[in-house]
Amino acid sequence: MSGTTTQSVPTVPLRSWWGWGWEHAHPDDAECEAMGALLPGTLARPLPVPRVADLDVGVPAVRPPASLAPLISADPPDRAAHAMGKAYRDVARALRGRPGRVPDLVAYPTDEREVGDLLDWAGTHRVAVVPFGGGSSVVGGVEYRGDRHRAVLSLDLTRMNRVLEVDSEGRAARIQAGTLGPSLEDQLRPHGLTLRHFPQSFEFSTLGGWLATRAGGHYATGRTHIDDFVQALRVVTPAGTSESWRLPASGAGPSPDRMFLGSEGVLGIITEAWVRLQARPVHKASAALAFEDFGAALGAVRALAQTDLAPANCRLLDSGEAALSGASRDGSAVLVLGFESADAPVDARLASAVDLARSHGGRGAPSEGGAPGDGAVRAWRSAFLRMPYLRDGLARMGAVAETFETAATWDRVPALIEDVRRTVGEAARKISGHPATVNCRLTHVYPDGAAPYFTVLAAGRPGDEVAFWDELKAVAGEVLHRHRATITHHHAVGRDHRPGYDLQRPEPFALALTAAKRALDPRGILNPGVLVD
Amino acid sequence: MSGTTTQSVPTVPLRSWWGWGWEHAHPDDAECEAMGALLPGTLARPLPVPRVADLDVGVPAVRPPASLAPLISADPPDRAAHAMGKAYRDVARALRGRPGRVPDLVAYPTDEREVGDLLDWAGTHRVAVVPFGGGSSVVGGVEYRGDRHRAVLSLDLTRMNRVLEVDSEGRAARIQAGTLGPSLEDQLRPHGLTLRHFPQSFEFSTLGGWLATRAGGHYATGRTHIDDFVQALRVVTPAGTSESWRLPASGAGPSPDRMFLGSEGVLGIITEAWVRLQARPVHKASAALAFEDFGAALGAVRALAQTDLAPANCRLLDSGEAALSGASRDGSAVLVLGFESADAPVDARLASAVDLARSHGGRGAPSEGGAPGDGAVRAWRSAFLRMPYLRDGLARMGAVAETFETAATWDRVPALIEDVRRTVGEAARKISGHPATVNCRLTHVYPDGAAPYFTVLAAGRPGDEVAFWDELKAVAGEVLHRHRATITHHHAVGRDHRPGYDLQRPEPFALALTAAKRALDPRGILNPGVLVD
Repeated sequence: MSGTTTQSVPTVPLRSWWGWGWEHAHPDDAECEAMGALLPGTLARPLPVPRVADLDVGVPAVRPPASLAPLISADPPDRAAHAMGKAYRDVARALRGRPGRVPDLVAYPTDEREVGDLLDWAGTHRVAVVPFGGGSSVVGGVEYRGDRHRAVLSLDLTRMNRVLEVDSEGRAARIQAGTLGPSLEDQLRPHGLTLRHFPQSFEFSTLGGWLATRAGGHYATGRTHIDDFVQALRVVTPAGTSESWRLPASGAGPSPDRMFLGSEGVLGIITEAWVRLQARPVHKASAALAFEDFGAALGAVRALAQTDLAPANCRLLDSGEAALSGASRDGSAVLVLGFESADAPVDARLASAVDLARSHGGRGAPSEGGAPGDGAVRAWRSAFLRMPYLRDGLARMGAVAETFETAATWDRVPALIEDVRRTVGEAARKISGHPATVNCRLTHVYPDGAAPYFTVLAAGRPGDEVAFWDELKAVAGEVLHRHRATITHHHAVGRDHRPGYDLQRPEPFALALTAAKRALDPRGILNPGVLVD
Repeated sequence: MSGTTTQSVPTVPLRSWWGWGWEHAHPDDAECEAMGALLPGTLARPLPVPRVADLDVGVPAVRPPASLAPLISADPPDRAAHAMGKAYRDVARALRGRPGRVPDLVAYPTDEREVGDLLDWAGTHRVAVVPFGGGSSVVGGVEYRGDRHRAVLSLDLTRMNRVLEVDSEGRAARIQAGTLGPSLEDQLRPHGLTLRHFPQSFEFSTLGGWLATRAGGHYATGRTHIDDFVQALRVVTPAGTSESWRLPASGAGPSPDRMFLGSEGVLGIITEAWVRLQARPVHKASAALAFEDFGAALGAVRALAQTDLAPANCRLLDSGEAALSGASRDGSAVLVLGFESADAPVDARLASAVDLARSHGGRGAPSEGGAPGDGAVRAWRSAFLRMPYLRDGLARMGAVAETFETAATWDRVPALIEDVRRTVGEAARKISGHPATVNCRLTHVYPDGAAPYFTVLAAGRPGDEVAFWDELKAVAGEVLHRHRATITHHHAVGRDHRPGYDLQRPEPFALALTAAKRALDPRGILNPGVLVD
């Protein structure tokens, strides 16, 4: 697979309504065909890029009042672009001209009062409200699948996109929820500060989306989730606006913020947050090590996670994943390590980590001066950002390219990975009728466990890719449940993970969350079908 | 104040029913008088040690069924020992022979089924259930103050006191909630592991109490609260038992564990937890630095908290606190620093921290080889553990010795501390009619703020110490609220902090928590009056 695109960047880049990211960054037909040729059983020619004009989006079932009309769009392209997230399932549906239910209206509030007014109106008219940040959900988090509401309003927060206040001394900022990753970092840069939250979706996701889904970010160890960077939240609910105090820590009752973190829009609309920032790192060092044996590599990563070395990057790629990303060409697994600091050199920490990895069978050296691991680190980084585009190219070739992730304690990790490879691989081969590959990487590691991330590739069943995906997803969910591995480490629950989530969540907590939902959203308009009924 | 006791340790040490810790560790009359002599306006002779035999505890208003009778005690000494926690207010009431409402019965369940049976019985008979771990609450967390229940059952968990499972590879253990600190560490020691959670109450508090109150522990930076060490929880609620999965991390909806952490017994009884452990540290180094200027010391601590040096101990004592603990004799503020690691020497980290502190005006050196700071570190440690006993000695002399703690972002810390010193000091002097001192230390520090801890000392009003305390507490709460500083960083809310908590908690969160409470405890028997009504 090529790491470059063959299309040029337009003056005003356009977001793809049906697939990942920018339109111009998508692989062209030739690249799609080249990828398809690597996967037996795929189509000979790519499916055409779907066009909004070909969709029948229907007429909105409601009209907004005059007071709100300036905030609201009923244009078919707007509505189509808010119909779904960016899961493989979403792309496959778009390619076959059968997207999820297109919202009747899309609202673009510019402040908190307007968010409140929209909720009031929606509550009065039985309109479902689906919060929408960057729309990068891969779990069906931003589409409506019910039938109990009169209409559906997609609430797009991206006009609330400013850093409102920066506390340089205390390294924190008050930021509106609709701020996209690059803009957020651009606004912090003049202050010498950074949030350093870089999920794969960074370009196309918002602070509010990260908070509502407990996104996993830049750091592979330590504070891996956005949760730990939250100082305070503002949330508009149908029952009023919740504002927590800016505090470095508190022991006053259960954390109000932790109830809204991960609530995926069912309890309220997160409108802004005070988040903790870092000084921009000036010391960096990275290395990649190769392992013949994946089990030995797991041992190395566990040992590393149990020191206080705290690598910022500690990604372990199995041989398939390493080959796919170009990080390895000899069938070895690859451990990508990175250290960074704003206040002291990190070479000694990297050297200690490399020594430890070598004592577990790793081969390689720090990348300084172009030593071995350097190319592998670069290859992995570039592939990491390009991956979702390639997935969409494969989808156009009729392939199923599914990713899912989880986390488990170390005692379960080896058997879990083995079971996923075997069981999900077999299921994919059986459903597809063609060869299938299952690759694995660890995206985040902890002293007590790790977060494996899986990629499944197989030719689909022409015209029936969604059913294929649904079957595969069910099998994957069963395997995770069997090992008591979480249904999601950082992709969130949405609608696609509901069955697994319902099994995982303690029943008394479900009662409590449902009661909380009823108290804050008595009319049941907020993101129906997500987390609770 | 002396750091040693004048009484010998009995063969079977007895817990004090009315004051802190062990009976034999309390200061004797002579020591009390020596302390009282330092505080103008106190009594000439100590109040007598109160005796259970002098209390009229009344007859229990209910009788347990035969099936539960073996678990339940109605003995006056048991009931008296479960009537209150160990706040100054509690000690003062006991000394004046007017303790809080003595529970009708004390239950000692030995397993989860018995906890469930007790809740069932209590629900059927409108009996309030007050969970009780070590009973070290300093916020009125373990007493009943209502009048809507037929009787009160104190649910003492300390017979559920075993480490049930240890996962050495993944450094975690499943531990029963009633396990006291020393026993917990004793049971982990053979595995070479430690929880390293050492609140001041360590000897007299339980894992379940720590979890229910979001206790602050050993680490002055980083993971300061027990929250971050929780892998999974089991909680018995009247609506069923909640069991979360053992996971290193998850992004599946709002964290179920975070809802129960800090719930102070109002949602259910925490019966066991999987907690994350550490290897026992073998490398340690500490130092103390003196500062002429407290403001400069605050700057040093903030700078330190914003590096990645991560000291385990980073306690800043103001001049009064430093003098009281013997850490300084020249009126300087003292910064106590400690580093520890299981896998690498920490001398370089300590040296960097000391350099940084010196660049902010600190004087001193690493304590290795008996260099300057050594004695100050030892003095502080010894005073830290002895402090609550001395408080009770002062209480016997009719003094009010109140401590309270908070946390705020750095921009608010200096003005907050100044305001507490001035306003609470003035209030204490006015109410007392005698001189009063207000000392401050920072117990925990963060990149974005700090947790100041205050000690107020003044002669009381003979016979009226509780009213004095209530007035003082109200003033302290107002000052904290004015600065938007949390009503508690790690002492919890209980009943004493309810007014401040109600002001701090976002209203929609109160609605959600109340609804969750109603769903899990529909009969309202669990710790009535705490957190929500």
